[in-house]
Amino acid sequence: MDSNEFRRYGHEIVEWIARYFENVEQYPVKSRVKPGEVKNALPDMPPSGSEPFDRFMHDFDEIIIPGITHWQSPNFFAYFPANSSPPSVLAEMLTAALGAQCMLWETSPAAAELEEKMMEWLKVMTGIPPEFEGVIQDSASSATLAALITAREKATGFRSNREGLSDAGKLRIYVSTQTHSSVEKGAGVAGFGRDNLVKVTVGNDFSMDPVALERAIEKDLAGGYIPCCAVATLGTTGTTAVDPLRAIGEICRKHGIWLHVDAALGGTALLLPEMRWMTDGIEYVDSLVFNPHKWMFTNFDCSAYFVRDAASLIRSFEILPEYLKTRTRGEVNDYRDWGIPLGRRFRALKLWAVIRSYGVEQLQSMIREHIRLAKMLAGLISTEKGFELLAPVPLNTVCFRYRPAGMNDEEANHLNEKINHALNDTGKIYLTHTKADGKYVLRMVTAQTNLTETHVLKAWELIREMASALSSQDGAVNID
Amino acid sequence: MDSNEFRRYGHEIVEWIARYFENVEQYPVKSRVKPGEVKNALPDMPPSGSEPFDRFMHDFDEIIIPGITHWQSPNFFAYFPANSSPPSVLAEMLTAALGAQCMLWETSPAAAELEEKMMEWLKVMTGIPPEFEGVIQDSASSATLAALITAREKATGFRSNREGLSDAGKLRIYVSTQTHSSVEKGAGVAGFGRDNLVKVTVGNDFSMDPVALERAIEKDLAGGYIPCCAVATLGTTGTTAVDPLRAIGEICRKHGIWLHVDAALGGTALLLPEMRWMTDGIEYVDSLVFNPHKWMFTNFDCSAYFVRDAASLIRSFEILPEYLKTRTRGEVNDYRDWGIPLGRRFRALKLWAVIRSYGVEQLQSMIREHIRLAKMLAGLISTEKGFELLAPVPLNTVCFRYRPAGMNDEEANHLNEKINHALNDTGKIYLTHTKADGKYVLRMVTAQTNLTETHVLKAWELIREMASALSSQDGAVNID
Repeated sequence: MDSNEFRRYGHEIVEWIARYFENVEQYPVKSRVKPGEVKNALPDMPPSGSEPFDRFMHDFDEIIIPGITHWQSPNFFAYFPANSSPPSVLAEMLTAALGAQCMLWETSPAAAELEEKMMEWLKVMTGIPPEFEGVIQDSASSATLAALITAREKATGFRSNREGLSDAGKLRIYVSTQTHSSVEKGAGVAGFGRDNLVKVTVGNDFSMDPVALERAIEKDLAGGYIPCCAVATLGTTGTTAVDPLRAIGEICRKHGIWLHVDAALGGTALLLPEMRWMTDGIEYVDSLVFNPHKWMFTNFDCSAYFVRDAASLIRSFEILPEYLKTRTRGEVNDYRDWGIPLGRRFRALKLWAVIRSYGVEQLQSMIREHIRLAKMLAGLISTEKGFELLAPVPLNTVCFRYRPAGMNDEEANHLNEKINHALNDTGKIYLTHTKADGKYVLRMVTAQTNLTETHVLKAWELIREMASALSSQDGAVNID
Repeated sequence: MDSNEFRRYGHEIVEWIARYFENVEQYPVKSRVKPGEVKNALPDMPPSGSEPFDRFMHDFDEIIIPGITHWQSPNFFAYFPANSSPPSVLAEMLTAALGAQCMLWETSPAAAELEEKMMEWLKVMTGIPPEFEGVIQDSASSATLAALITAREKATGFRSNREGLSDAGKLRIYVSTQTHSSVEKGAGVAGFGRDNLVKVTVGNDFSMDPVALERAIEKDLAGGYIPCCAVATLGTTGTTAVDPLRAIGEICRKHGIWLHVDAALGGTALLLPEMRWMTDGIEYVDSLVFNPHKWMFTNFDCSAYFVRDAASLIRSFEILPEYLKTRTRGEVNDYRDWGIPLGRRFRALKLWAVIRSYGVEQLQSMIREHIRLAKMLAGLISTEKGFELLAPVPLNTVCFRYRPAGMNDEEANHLNEKINHALNDTGKIYLTHTKADGKYVLRMVTAQTNLTETHVLKAWELIREMASALSSQDGAVNID
């Protein structure tokens, strides 16, 4: 394909994308394809000869699009969002065209220095103290793994990296029962062992109970274990609970424990001064990850990892074979030493495009509106007969269920699971669930880039109708 | 930014990219900026208000582009390539627009099934046996880490993941002295300890000596160590040596050692039937990684990881919190369980675009031409007075140096380092170096997407001129 053909299809795709942005609400939010449907529509053998790009675009429309779940639809209320935005897509086009490797400063100085500067900007924007240093990782799972490994190395005098895990089976990680599963995955990967993940109980608001944390640490010390790392969360995945950082931080400091903060979701809310209460106690924090690719309108992947002691991070990951030696080493940041992968995309560019195109104030007002919509929805739910809120709403996620009078938990679980699937099967909205205190919880996340109050109100209307329809059908009390 | 503004800038960027493809050779290949130059040109504070996208594009041209090293220039002969191509860029545009999360089948069925199908196509294209299963990882470093962890788990009865690393400090990994540094990094991350990386000696062609491997294993067994994993390479980073798979495989099989193959570079050459000698012995292989994002014209990141026992891989990484439970679990591939990150981009799309747009035959002829150019260059070098080849040329990389008659190794190292930097400073070509047997080696990789014979011949002319100029200036023997 020469540059003129590229022009032709490039312009066609820009029109395709613009129409997609305009019409995204017309697709079923959650794909309706059945397992195997897409795979079976594709040939088993790769083509020998070149195919015109028209045919690719045709199959993209006919085969791929029906199998896509539309994360950029404002009716996407599932999981946490993976928001994109027009300026972010534009920047991704440039990143793809340059195809620059950003492993070392020398392999693309502008990428390394823009990354450094964007991490500075994010600190200014979120109130993360200047003494932290930042690096973009692909995902919070990888950033959290980097934190666990650095904590492990500090706890074992950097011997584990060199000699093999010291004190295997003895190093402990503290999380709450609500902490993201990536910590458990990381505990396995880094050799702690998943059994050494101590799951501390939570309070009624699903945030970590610091008294229980301290008890767990003391019990472990008495049992000969070595407390190594604790993970506090700003916005847990289930219910967006916010762990009490100061109380947890004081305990960690006392016992010399690395404190990592998973603010993958909640970090974006730190753009709002009124939400900075979440980072009260940040002086005790060793590392923090927040995902602009979730709620800050920046294409996945873009996970901002901040660490107070960057030297220990680098010491844990640094490798210096001859073929990677450069003359600028030591003067500049070579980000390959700040995480697992060697190769790295030019991810700072989209962050620059997003921050400049929106400006901090507009980003703030969009995030503020999302939080307002969540609280508005929570208000509607809490006053609606038969519905109940199942968790506080500090951020952008509302946890609730439908339980008509007289229905027990087991029946309600069954009913809400049915409601969830039936809602998703309409194609009009997409919700996902969690469980909290044994209850099946409907989660509705009001944080998609293009979300408006109208989308929330329409979704709520649909939920009420569906709940009512399915509960009568179930033979349960009909509240209408 | 609304969809019409997106249209306007989208079309502008398509033109920008087409011009970039046309003019990429006019930029200095290796960026000439000094440390701090880009950073200092950027404001310290993020903008409060929204900025027009024109200003972003202006700064992109003025500040970023001078700081970019042009990996897509056909005069890029450094490292290994990170090739892109027009169809790959087009697909990346669509991927960015959809912004779909591909962690579970349900979160985008088409992405999961296209990934599955593309991995099938790659097996057909490379002759990797059908019993392997494939998954796209971000980088070979991550894929190799996944292999090390699965090997660790199998060697310790899946106890390490659960209870913490069993036999810490006893599990051994075998590589050659030429194996990529990612294995050493992974050995640290996964808790083996870098000291437990046994570096086996290589032969004159820099490929692993299987006799030395077996001796190392036997010595370890006698010393109470547990041989766990070996890594063989098809195309080492320094000199593209190809380790003898069958001989290594037989030894691994005998001792029950997981055999991982790092074909990050060499995998693409397997598209050529005449290069399949490299995988003789594949029946002994447990896992293999190959990077379409290096030599197969597919944008980074796209690392294809193949594993014979996918169940063990999944068992090593699987986590199942309530909020990720779906109704299709077990029926489909949920690729988040196949590696470290949870979130995943829709990376199969660009692979589909590249394979269909070129077709297998054209891909083969491009790769074949790259290998021919390397051998042609090696021929020129070996017959040129004062130059010497320092390694065989099985693939796309030529290792050589300039050493006029009478110059010792130390002087030659000094001179070739000067030649390398001087060549790069011209902006006309970009080479990087390695060391082999204590010699400073110039590496020239003839594998960029748009490379032609003319580029290679011009580069060679420049190298000869520079070598001659710098050696006279050095007071060394002038061969002209």
